[in-house]
Amino acid sequence: MSMSVKLPVAILGATGAVGQRFIQLLQDHPWFEVAEVIGSERSSGRAYADAAHWILDGGPPDAVAGLNVKPLDGDFTSPLIFSALPKEAADPHEMRLAAAGHVVATNASLNRMLDDVPLLLPEINASHLALVDVQRAARGWTTGALVANSNCTIMPVVMSLAPLLQYGVEKIQVISAQAISGAGYPGVPSLDIIDNMVPYIGGEEEKLETESLKMLGTLSGDAIQWLDAVVSASCNRAPVIDGHLVNVSVSLREKPALDEIIRAWDNFRGPDPVPSLPSAPKQPVQYLTQQDRPQPRRDRAAGKGMTTSIGRLRECPIFGYKFVALSHNTIRGAAGCSILNAELMAANGYINGFSVNGQLS
Amino acid sequence: MSMSVKLPVAILGATGAVGQRFIQLLQDHPWFEVAEVIGSERSSGRAYADAAHWILDGGPPDAVAGLNVKPLDGDFTSPLIFSALPKEAADPHEMRLAAAGHVVATNASLNRMLDDVPLLLPEINASHLALVDVQRAARGWTTGALVANSNCTIMPVVMSLAPLLQYGVEKIQVISAQAISGAGYPGVPSLDIIDNMVPYIGGEEEKLETESLKMLGTLSGDAIQWLDAVVSASCNRAPVIDGHLVNVSVSLREKPALDEIIRAWDNFRGPDPVPSLPSAPKQPVQYLTQQDRPQPRRDRAAGKGMTTSIGRLRECPIFGYKFVALSHNTIRGAAGCSILNAELMAANGYINGFSVNGQLS
Amino acid sequence: MSMSVKLPVAILGATGAVGQRFIQLLQDHPWFEVAEVIGSERSSGRAYADAAHWILDGGPPDAVAGLNVKPLDGDFTSPLIFSALPKEAADPHEMRLAAAGHVVATNASLNRMLDDVPLLLPEINASHLALVDVQRAARGWTTGALVANSNCTIMPVVMSLAPLLQYGVEKIQVISAQAISGAGYPGVPSLDIIDNMVPYIGGEEEKLETESLKMLGTLSGDAIQWLDAVVSASCNRAPVIDGHLVNVSVSLREKPALDEIIRAWDNFRGPDPVPSLPSAPKQPVQYLTQQDRPQPRRDRAAGKGMTTSIGRLRECPIFGYKFVALSHNTIRGAAGCSILNAELMAANGYINGFSVNGQLS
Amino acid sequence: MSMSVKLPVAILGATGAVGQRFIQLLQDHPWFEVAEVIGSERSSGRAYADAAHWILDGGPPDAVAGLNVKPLDGDFTSPLIFSALPKEAADPHEMRLAAAGHVVATNASLNRMLDDVPLLLPEINASHLALVDVQRAARGWTTGALVANSNCTIMPVVMSLAPLLQYGVEKIQVISAQAISGAGYPGVPSLDIIDNMVPYIGGEEEKLETESLKMLGTLSGDAIQWLDAVVSASCNRAPVIDGHLVNVSVSLREKPALDEIIRAWDNFRGPDPVPSLPSAPKQPVQYLTQQDRPQPRRDRAAGKGMTTSIGRLRECPIFGYKFVALSHNTIRGAAGCSILNAELMAANGYINGFSVNGQLS
Repeated sequence: MSMSVKLPVAILGATGAVGQRFIQLLQDHPWFEVAEVIGSERSSGRAYADAAHWILDGGPPDAVAGLNVKPLDGDFTSPLIFSALPKEAADPHEMRLAAAGHVVATNASLNRMLDDVPLLLPEINASHLALVDVQRAARGWTTGALVANSNCTIMPVVMSLAPLLQYGVEKIQVISAQAISGAGYPGVPSLDIIDNMVPYIGGEEEKLETESLKMLGTLSGDAIQWLDAVVSASCNRAPVIDGHLVNVSVSLREKPALDEIIRAWDNFRGPDPVPSLPSAPKQPVQYLTQQDRPQPRRDRAAGKGMTTSIGRLRECPIFGYKFVALSHNTIRGAAGCSILNAELMAANGYINGFSVNGQLS
Repeated sequence: MSMSVKLPVAILGATGAVGQRFIQLLQDHPWFEVAEVIGSERSSGRAYADAAHWILDGGPPDAVAGLNVKPLDGDFTSPLIFSALPKEAADPHEMRLAAAGHVVATNASLNRMLDDVPLLLPEINASHLALVDVQRAARGWTTGALVANSNCTIMPVVMSLAPLLQYGVEKIQVISAQAISGAGYPGVPSLDIIDNMVPYIGGEEEKLETESLKMLGTLSGDAIQWLDAVVSASCNRAPVIDGHLVNVSVSLREKPALDEIIRAWDNFRGPDPVPSLPSAPKQPVQYLTQQDRPQPRRDRAAGKGMTTSIGRLRECPIFGYKFVALSHNTIRGAAGCSILNAELMAANGYINGFSVNGQLS
Repeated sequence: MSMSVKLPVAILGATGAVGQRFIQLLQDHPWFEVAEVIGSERSSGRAYADAAHWILDGGPPDAVAGLNVKPLDGDFTSPLIFSALPKEAADPHEMRLAAAGHVVATNASLNRMLDDVPLLLPEINASHLALVDVQRAARGWTTGALVANSNCTIMPVVMSLAPLLQYGVEKIQVISAQAISGAGYPGVPSLDIIDNMVPYIGGEEEKLETESLKMLGTLSGDAIQWLDAVVSASCNRAPVIDGHLVNVSVSLREKPALDEIIRAWDNFRGPDPVPSLPSAPKQPVQYLTQQDRPQPRRDRAAGKGMTTSIGRLRECPIFGYKFVALSHNTIRGAAGCSILNAELMAANGYINGFSVNGQLS
Repeated sequence: MSMSVKLPVAILGATGAVGQRFIQLLQDHPWFEVAEVIGSERSSGRAYADAAHWILDGGPPDAVAGLNVKPLDGDFTSPLIFSALPKEAADPHEMRLAAAGHVVATNASLNRMLDDVPLLLPEINASHLALVDVQRAARGWTTGALVANSNCTIMPVVMSLAPLLQYGVEKIQVISAQAISGAGYPGVPSLDIIDNMVPYIGGEEEKLETESLKMLGTLSGDAIQWLDAVVSASCNRAPVIDGHLVNVSVSLREKPALDEIIRAWDNFRGPDPVPSLPSAPKQPVQYLTQQDRPQPRRDRAAGKGMTTSIGRLRECPIFGYKFVALSHNTIRGAAGCSILNAELMAANGYINGFSVNGQLS
């Protein structure tokens, strides 16, 4: 079968930090192919390689380097659109494009908490995808859809708590040490963070305390019923390039033994067909037995950035349990998650004209 | 009055990281003067400037650079001895020297938790100094004494909680981001910490969970009655030179308003004569109103490293209150605290032959 | 005599990184007192503490925190004005204010290379100050004047070469490792510099290759005769907060012994009255004998940031001599140098109505 | 053909920083398979995963994790031995094992400069391999051999100069900014290098000034005739994990245009069969056109760590030419180079019983 079986995709905000990560991860993707790169007024009309100040390793892939950046307010031909836009820029484009029939998988926080927009993380809440049917019915869309992924700091929290829902999660406390790439580019000035920590990240704690409950909730009828738990979050910026580390304390209704929890993590896979999706890691969650792990620099690349690493599970005299978890914030926590979300949609027939077998149908 | 009014002091472990900080802080001290520097076999017999790989700014003070390093097992003439020894090396020298009549103010953890050794922090528990009388009586010492300061990470915790004891402290949770200087020299390999965090520091959590309760306790008869509270600590190493940052969550029996707590911090001074001791900062605790402070690099030098900075006090849905606190770990958390402890002893007549007025009596 | 003997000074660009350093260094200055803070449209009209995102230790001095920021295009009352403006913003204000009768000591590069503007560094070219007479005559100014200090990376180069001019400096090669504070704030994004070096700084090499020759030149008649030497510079950014380190190679016409050069450095003081100016360090240049110094973090604070530290002098098989030098880039290399320049002008009667003895005359 | 066609290899010093890199790079190697791991007394007898404090990403490969570490003074069965020993530990083992019939490819500096030991870098001096015949004849060895790779900082220098030898290289000046991994583990204390540069690395400059000339020399009869050029090196340590950056200045007898030099770099491949060896990168040298590259973090992984990146070629008023070059110091500069050296030996029939086609013959 020819190359043309790949589904053409567009990247909104293609020149930014997360946009670059999308382009990097989609290189050699078996189903999708970057066909359109879309940027701000400053970038549009220029070749991607000129418009983007590439901040990842090496340079942009050859296949994308020569693409012309299109303006944000244009019309696009790709059925699937990934959005790496900042919140402010996402409005009204994401909604406009979904209404125009595109499947939009977004990393922006703008529409994340709308009742009919699923906050998808395939391993833990693939069933929320059915909300797209509600969305389409309510909005009169046929091929269009809008699905979101969450704030990047939530990832290690919900990935480690999903396998524990069976024990009754009641109280969740999260203290983060977040990588600078979470702030985009140029993002955090080096004068603010070298030899330093910054114990504040605007808006982050609020997101953690709400989005996590929506993600861990259950689809009941036409709506997500949030997890009935209380979350307290404190967010800190650390001089780390990539990888958000969280100290998590949790109280559970049941009292599983520590090794039972570890087995729950190591055996966690998510529902079919998630484990067989192209970007799904072999192990969504891995427990590290060394006493000083996970560490951002050494564990962020696990599972090509899609595996969440956990360590230091121990009893807590206040909460019952505490541990440390880590996810790669721009892969599992942003672009990689959006791509996995789109793969789940493709596998479930939500992308018009594309079927996984035979691919462009 | 001549220079000779200053009390000669000795530094055990003078060439190490904390030893150097003692020497730096005692430069131009109004009461004390470094007269003896004491080190390991490797160092002894050499001039201090040659034996010490000076790791602080510039080089060692001229007055100390030329002193000959004495061996650890010798006899010393200084009535007051500061110990910057690692735990293993402190045994049996600290106890031996106290028994021989020296006042020993130690930073080592070896004897910290002995029932008759006060874990002093003048602003918050100056009354514990009376334990020295118990100690002397029990051990048959006349001029000798052994007082300790605590683990460095406890400092921002107990400095911020002491003013809140009036509200009934019940549960304390601490998540730290600790500076590399806390591990001494050579300490943390750079390959382990640049672009990284390490979520484990051996023995640290246990110290935090016990020493803090002893420090915040009350002297009752001949013994310290520990604070009746529960502590849960999680310790992380961060790529920061100096300054331990802690995210503290606390539940209080009473429910003071946030601004009442802030006033309690800003007005906290400690009992007389502590505020007038040479190394006491004008404000032991300061509350910073900026939303992103305290930060290690920008706030560790407050009050010449002796002021604890607090920020981000807010309500916590789980504990009631949460905030961020910071202390300079090798000044307030080590050498500076030991010196303040010794000043408190001097001011209270515990150092034989030395009185603050007229100084050498 | 009352406090009012201090000369009121204004800071242009007071809220930026260098502006903050001016304010920090002028705190408790014996002659000058910050009376006016001047900023961009965004800042003007607000209290300084609100308008400035203070990036140095602690916060702004109380005496300045409450000053209202004035707009750049206003008229000012202070006889002496320090300019911390970026190049683009300096035009036309610096020239306008000098023409209006103010003495302007600028850190901006805009007018630095004008023939009648001295590029002052008191220890090495105090005689260039006479160019102000030429400037006043040519431009019809009476009390106004414009003097500049150089690019910050030149400082360790010219401070180390000035004492060697007696041997005939012929070829100078400089490879820098420059601190991030040299780029101002927000300046270098942390994503660009943590775990990294950037081997390019726009415009920097050209400045080094020309300004250094003007500074090391001699005033001959009405003009500076540049040093007749060739300079080759390569500039690199390093993950260091403050302190520019340079590897310097130099060929000299004469062949002094290494210890003769070291003596020339250690004995270098600059002409009277420079050594007695308030901001002059005891030693403008110090030679460090340890084999691994100078180092930015440990030596930048020497002489309160005004002493240049040199080390590792050795023979070079190509140039003859090579060594390493370091200066604090925002103190000696920017604000501190401007203040020293102003002190030299004050001491020489160039500031109308101000004399050092009796101060406001 | 079965798995057993892979040649069993042993790693001396397998638990150290470079030993780990060997193990990482040999994972899935098409010709070689790690069969023996050899370490110090402290490590021997333990499983590799327990004995090694793994400092690279993730953990050791499963196939090696369970190997028992053998003591250094034992006998080994692998025909090919890679040595990652520090200089002191290499004596007498490397020579002893070569004499015992093993081919030893070493990264240690111990025997590097012996007249009959080739300092191999396949792309630039594959012809030096013939020195092994001289070595065998002189020492009476039949299957044994000892080949070395050079100091890691030389790599970007010789890789960039080899394509310029045709123009007559006369003077070479190198100023380095070297990564901390070059010092091994634990290596550089974090207190020495965060927010800092250290302008000294013991023994490094001497190695650069001699080894480079041997490597760029020519085999003439039974000996290497060193390149007739003069080298001046200054070495600095930077807070960078991996990747040695060098500012190189060079004078050439001929005066090629800048674009001619760039073409020479981009077209450089090395002699056959080097380009087809498994670890040879597609491009040994790449020229980057962006004005601020190469950068360690962004370019060290080029060609899986085997490509040297060059940038900023420009004219120098003193030397004629200057540029910036970068190589990954523990891959191209250490383990990767040793492996490429062994592949060259294998391809040329120097490893007894192994032929590339049919592999174990």
